Amino acid sequence: MTNIAFIGLGHMGHPMVCNLLKAGFKVSVFDVTSSAIQSLVAVGAIGASSVKEAVKEADVVITMLQTGQQVKSVCLGETGFFAHVKPNILYIDSSSIEITTTRELHALAEKNKMAMIDAPVSGGVLGAEAATLTFMVGGTLENFAQGKPILEKMGKKIVHAGVAGSGQAAKICNNLILGISMIAVSEGFALGKKLGLDPKKFFDISSNSSGQCWSMTSYCPVPGLVEKAPSNQEFKPGFMAKMMLKDLRLGQLAAESVGAAIPLGAEAAELYNLFVNQGNGEMDFSGIIKMFF
Amino acid sequence: MTNIAFIGLGHMGHPMVCNLLKAGFKVSVFDVTSSAIQSLVAVGAIGASSVKEAVKEADVVITMLQTGQQVKSVCLGETGFFAHVKPNILYIDSSSIEITTTRELHALAEKNKMAMIDAPVSGGVLGAEAATLTFMVGGTLENFAQGKPILEKMGKKIVHAGVAGSGQAAKICNNLILGISMIAVSEGFALGKKLGLDPKKFFDISSNSSGQCWSMTSYCPVPGLVEKAPSNQEFKPGFMAKMMLKDLRLGQLAAESVGAAIPLGAEAAELYNLFVNQGNGEMDFSGIIKMFF
Amino acid sequence: MTNIAFIGLGHMGHPMVCNLLKAGFKVSVFDVTSSAIQSLVAVGAIGASSVKEAVKEADVVITMLQTGQQVKSVCLGETGFFAHVKPNILYIDSSSIEITTTRELHALAEKNKMAMIDAPVSGGVLGAEAATLTFMVGGTLENFAQGKPILEKMGKKIVHAGVAGSGQAAKICNNLILGISMIAVSEGFALGKKLGLDPKKFFDISSNSSGQCWSMTSYCPVPGLVEKAPSNQEFKPGFMAKMMLKDLRLGQLAAESVGAAIPLGAEAAELYNLFVNQGNGEMDFSGIIKMFF
Amino acid sequence: MTNIAFIGLGHMGHPMVCNLLKAGFKVSVFDVTSSAIQSLVAVGAIGASSVKEAVKEADVVITMLQTGQQVKSVCLGETGFFAHVKPNILYIDSSSIEITTTRELHALAEKNKMAMIDAPVSGGVLGAEAATLTFMVGGTLENFAQGKPILEKMGKKIVHAGVAGSGQAAKICNNLILGISMIAVSEGFALGKKLGLDPKKFFDISSNSSGQCWSMTSYCPVPGLVEKAPSNQEFKPGFMAKMMLKDLRLGQLAAESVGAAIPLGAEAAELYNLFVNQGNGEMDFSGIIKMFF
Repeated sequence: MTNIAFIGLGHMGHPMVCNLLKAGFKVSVFDVTSSAIQSLVAVGAIGASSVKEAVKEADVVITMLQTGQQVKSVCLGETGFFAHVKPNILYIDSSSIEITTTRELHALAEKNKMAMIDAPVSGGVLGAEAATLTFMVGGTLENFAQGKPILEKMGKKIVHAGVAGSGQAAKICNNLILGISMIAVSEGFALGKKLGLDPKKFFDISSNSSGQCWSMTSYCPVPGLVEKAPSNQEFKPGFMAKMMLKDLRLGQLAAESVGAAIPLGAEAAELYNLFVNQGNGEMDFSGIIKMFF
Repeated sequence: MTNIAFIGLGHMGHPMVCNLLKAGFKVSVFDVTSSAIQSLVAVGAIGASSVKEAVKEADVVITMLQTGQQVKSVCLGETGFFAHVKPNILYIDSSSIEITTTRELHALAEKNKMAMIDAPVSGGVLGAEAATLTFMVGGTLENFAQGKPILEKMGKKIVHAGVAGSGQAAKICNNLILGISMIAVSEGFALGKKLGLDPKKFFDISSNSSGQCWSMTSYCPVPGLVEKAPSNQEFKPGFMAKMMLKDLRLGQLAAESVGAAIPLGAEAAELYNLFVNQGNGEMDFSGIIKMFF
Repeated sequence: MTNIAFIGLGHMGHPMVCNLLKAGFKVSVFDVTSSAIQSLVAVGAIGASSVKEAVKEADVVITMLQTGQQVKSVCLGETGFFAHVKPNILYIDSSSIEITTTRELHALAEKNKMAMIDAPVSGGVLGAEAATLTFMVGGTLENFAQGKPILEKMGKKIVHAGVAGSGQAAKICNNLILGISMIAVSEGFALGKKLGLDPKKFFDISSNSSGQCWSMTSYCPVPGLVEKAPSNQEFKPGFMAKMMLKDLRLGQLAAESVGAAIPLGAEAAELYNLFVNQGNGEMDFSGIIKMFF
Repeated sequence: MTNIAFIGLGHMGHPMVCNLLKAGFKVSVFDVTSSAIQSLVAVGAIGASSVKEAVKEADVVITMLQTGQQVKSVCLGETGFFAHVKPNILYIDSSSIEITTTRELHALAEKNKMAMIDAPVSGGVLGAEAATLTFMVGGTLENFAQGKPILEKMGKKIVHAGVAGSGQAAKICNNLILGISMIAVSEGFALGKKLGLDPKKFFDISSNSSGQCWSMTSYCPVPGLVEKAPSNQEFKPGFMAKMMLKDLRLGQLAAESVGAAIPLGAEAAELYNLFVNQGNGEMDFSGIIKMFF
């Protein structure tokens, strides 16, 4: 039986561990917040008092953290798990972090004879709870194959994006397009309304035309047009504006690292920054339409 | 039998007249370029030597011009047709022009006891030739009903967008979203490539995820991914960059007229302006991806 | 003695008329708001009940209005003064309006054998009251020479910017740079503060270095650094944010009319639009720094 | 006598060392490019074969490098000089690097009982040669006082910007304003020209008005207006576009580190990125005006 160590038990990590437990895995868990550990122990996880203790028996280590800095501190140095795991384990990092950090970790993992994949997710808290996340995976095909059966317990779509770091790259580029599109749709509907267009009519026209995009047809920021969209629940997330800002910032860092110009991506990041600084960070990211009404 | 007068015989007007002729209408045509008249006379149209002459017998007048200024000069003043048509005709303006001008014309048409609809199109030259254009129509339901059978000879989708001016509004807002999306997709794929992502893999991931949009899945600016996209024919248009710039400028004018802020729309317009100023105006608008590679 | 007709008696027009009266001119005044007329009659102006009546005896007509549309309606048509003035008068338009409209009026004035100059101002209400306005003048040198003695009664600096329309062009291009600079200074000081820089120290450094600009050294948006800046009086204008927005919009229209790309100008306009839409239109334009703190 | 070790002998480092030698200091030099060492040995410096050897006798260590990563590798680890210097030396970092890295080094220097100041420069290669650089210094007043006499041999203005990291912060914020201003001036003059304004006339007007800024009056991107500006020498730098891009990127990183929104700064960075990607990185940064003509 596979022993899993899971580090990072927040809004995403918690339901992901629950799904692994349901699938019958033995899961040892750690987080800096001890109550997060306790609530998973209550449903069958094994609590650990440190990263080191959590990974002791692990065949697979999964991290789900906020920042590259956090991931590095969990992996490296004296208290990091790279120094304390069994040989030949698989390491899955599902955090969304800078590509440069991911690549650095892949290199160190290889040196330590660990198999590693970067596997950031999309789908949010709801996807994590329903085990319908999408995992975008970077790493060798062999490592991908090894991780896939585990990821399938937490998600619905497990896609191989390419070599080490490609999972992060795919997520960053997708969310760059997403963040820009959401603002585009918001500008379009707000302008239309001010011009006297009925939003429903414009939706019918544009969603069947060249303006169509996921932000419009699956997640419309105007209430009343797409049933399950957060706009119908006062922008309760969903995917928080501050998380979109984080991903757009990762996009800028990635662009800087390779000299790519992303003028609309940069502006979208700044608009989300203004929106978050006005106290809206915890609102769903589609709430940015409020800036334009 | 319905007599139609058609003013404006350019890349779009020419094939539209051909389709009306095929449908059996009697079409009287005028353009400032006399060769444009001759080539339609050769296929059955009736040439006119002035706007006034063209509309003499008309039950329906259709204009397909470049600018609001041109439309006004064809409609108004001593040489304009408003002063010379039979009573109670239907006037269809299929030009893409400023909303303020459209509304002004609607008001004057009503005063002249003409029925008017604004009916700008999407679908480009190919759509005009194949009679598969989309017409976005503004005006009363009664006027819409009167125009629909005629528009159906030139297009596939005839949608009522709302009151006078709503056809222009819908097109402008749709193309605002389109122009931004195309740049978003271009930035995303260019960044992905520089990060080492395989474009085909990224396409498979993003087109099934939240980055999906028409610009990606029906018109991908990266060659080899969407069969009929202009990117596969060296960006032969299609929909020219300079026409996209024109529509984004109409978007800015519309936004200014109602005090709407469209930060990404404004930036998209400027990027298309830089692209056009570098000599790329006649390239398909998806060619803007070249700015980012 | 020179008879002056002055049309448009708002915040700017009122003190300008007062200065003309002080200088001994006979000034006939008109405005759509009759109380604006009365308050000037009380200090010696001659009230008129229409544009036509105001210009009856005039040697010089001055307009100071909000929009090009207003200027056109005061000049043209049956009620416009072009049809009712004595021959060979001088027409001075001090409104800030679109270049295309200015040029249209210059052409019509010439046809009417009137001398015309466009002479928009900078300096705001305070400058109008103190007769320290700057007038940027477009028109022939002859017409400039004719207008200068009159403008000198209302302003301190009267500069010839070039041929017809150049006054508008100069003001638009100057305020384009000004609007962008003010946001640049705001971003720089806000970022500096968040990084722990003392604003006074940063001011001393940057104002003596390559970041120096009028927005910083004469009008600093951070309170306590430049004595007379509106930031020291809770952003009481000065020059209202909505007027800066208007000028940036004129910049966009001008850019569109000649195919110029102004990416930062466009973005500055959108940021001022967001700021004004949040209810800050009457605040001094330097108040935009509040968006960044 | 003070022994100085100088690491980093590029376009800036070379003339800075020359000025220290002229002032009578004993200077030990190192660079990864050995020819850079040799050319300074030829004028009196002591060549070293490693960082370690260079700092052996040093009372003061100065670094002038390209990136934070380079500075860290020169300072830290087994080959870094922190491990090999005499006690109580003064460390001056004149590189322009990320604030986070600067602060990290300050903390480590303090732990190592070294005095440290961050002292990035403005003034470019010409300023380095003429010993007229401006040094913006971060660190305690005591450390600033210790470094000042040395910096005065290489520069004309030595300003204390505040606590550790403030030198970097001041430079970043100043250059943020500078980069935006240069584009603002470029847009303004390009638009003016297209509108028919004479550049000399517009310069006279705007430089005496609210558009005035250093980018216009000391470094005008339009040739023929400011004598010593690089625009008069075909944009030979001066301050290269790629260095401006670097500083704007440092601005973005700094903004991200404190959650500051800098929408025009971000867009300016992207425009410089497009400009550099078109092969103009080594042109003076004022050359960006070419994008707008």
